[in-house]
Amino acid sequence: MYIGKVIGNVVATKKDSRLVGSKLLIVCPLVRDSKEKDTMVVAVDAVGAGIGEVVLVVKGSTARAALGIDAPIDAAIVGIVDTMEV
Amino acid sequence: MYIGKVIGNVVATKKDSRLVGSKLLIVCPLVRDSKEKDTMVVAVDAVGAGIGEVVLVVKGSTARAALGIDAPIDAAIVGIVDTMEV
Amino acid sequence: MYIGKVIGNVVATKKDSRLVGSKLLIVCPLVRDSKEKDTMVVAVDAVGAGIGEVVLVVKGSTARAALGIDAPIDAAIVGIVDTMEV
Amino acid sequence: MYIGKVIGNVVATKKDSRLVGSKLLIVCPLVRDSKEKDTMVVAVDAVGAGIGEVVLVVKGSTARAALGIDAPIDAAIVGIVDTMEV
Amino acid sequence: MYIGKVIGNVVATKKDSRLVGSKLLIVCPLVRDSKEKDTMVVAVDAVGAGIGEVVLVVKGSTARAALGIDAPIDAAIVGIVDTMEV
Repeated sequence: MYIGKVIGNVVATKKDSRLVGSKLLIVCPLVRDSKEKDTMVVAVDAVGAGIGEVVLVVKGSTARAALGIDAPIDAAIVGIVDTMEV
Repeated sequence: MYIGKVIGNVVATKKDSRLVGSKLLIVCPLVRDSKEKDTMVVAVDAVGAGIGEVVLVVKGSTARAALGIDAPIDAAIVGIVDTMEV
Repeated sequence: MYIGKVIGNVVATKKDSRLVGSKLLIVCPLVRDSKEKDTMVVAVDAVGAGIGEVVLVVKGSTARAALGIDAPIDAAIVGIVDTMEV
Repeated sequence: MYIGKVIGNVVATKKDSRLVGSKLLIVCPLVRDSKEKDTMVVAVDAVGAGIGEVVLVVKGSTARAALGIDAPIDAAIVGIVDTMEV
Repeated sequence: MYIGKVIGNVVATKKDSRLVGSKLLIVCPLVRDSKEKDTMVVAVDAVGAGIGEVVLVVKGSTARAALGIDAPIDAAIVGIVDTMEV
């Protein structure tokens, strides 16, 4: 997994029907000292995350396994980070 | 998934026969502030996307799952973005 | 696999229930001359690694295979490095 | 898939026996304006590509699916690009 | 696959039991003009490669397929490069 910050969300009316009902959040990966990278990933939320929260994201086939649904998903939020001890 | 902009298309007469009939679009990933990266991905369109549109792209084995066909595909467009709230 | 250094750990109360009980360590990949990259990966520990140790990390579907559990995991620590001869 | 240019080939006498008979081509990914990256990928040719041609490359488990053989392959050439309209 | 140079090896006494007996080599990917990147990958040797040799490396699930063993492996050396014609 990697650590990211939820910075927004995506609205897509026209999409694969298996994505209907999924919350699509925009996540920026964090590097050391919690700096945000300028890349963005769209992850499906599995734990009730909100904008501004720091989260754990899994990618690839693991994301499909995380959601447990047959949908075209390659990134999923699987945890909300309380604290990082570094 | 990541967010990208469709910037063109590819014509390939000589190709794997399972790709015949697939629309092959060139997508540039977007970073924050909707800036385009200079990398290009060729994604198979699953939702009727057109040039200039901002789309959701899945990659890897998820792309094959998205299309639901047995073809050599590792990137697929699964949604058209209406708005990003960041 | 790649070589990384364990620099901390993550506490996440709200997470996928299949992650409960997993030790989530923050790892920085090492490049040549053992310099640390500034990226961070959260890996599930499978060998009893501790903070400050240099470890072997596998990623992707291999991480799930490493742990042998049905959990949303895409990075796992599978060895503790004693020495690197370079 | 991504777009790349075939810049050479690899000769490897000592290799996994399942690779015997495979044509191993060196491909440089192209970024916008058809500039070549300085990275190199070795891809197995599935469509009769030659040096200097611009091709479509798939990677990861998709490459094994593309070739349809049980060989240790993670990149395959699945099309020859006639034109890119950007 | 990508092309890399074997620059060393890793000793790890404490590791996943399925890795016991595997030769763990440190590989630096090569870019054009055979320059070495400063990243390092630990790959399991399947062809008898030695330090200083230029090799073909596969990654991800392909590496597990290459070795044909049920071990937590995501990079494998599947060939020794005799010549590159670029």
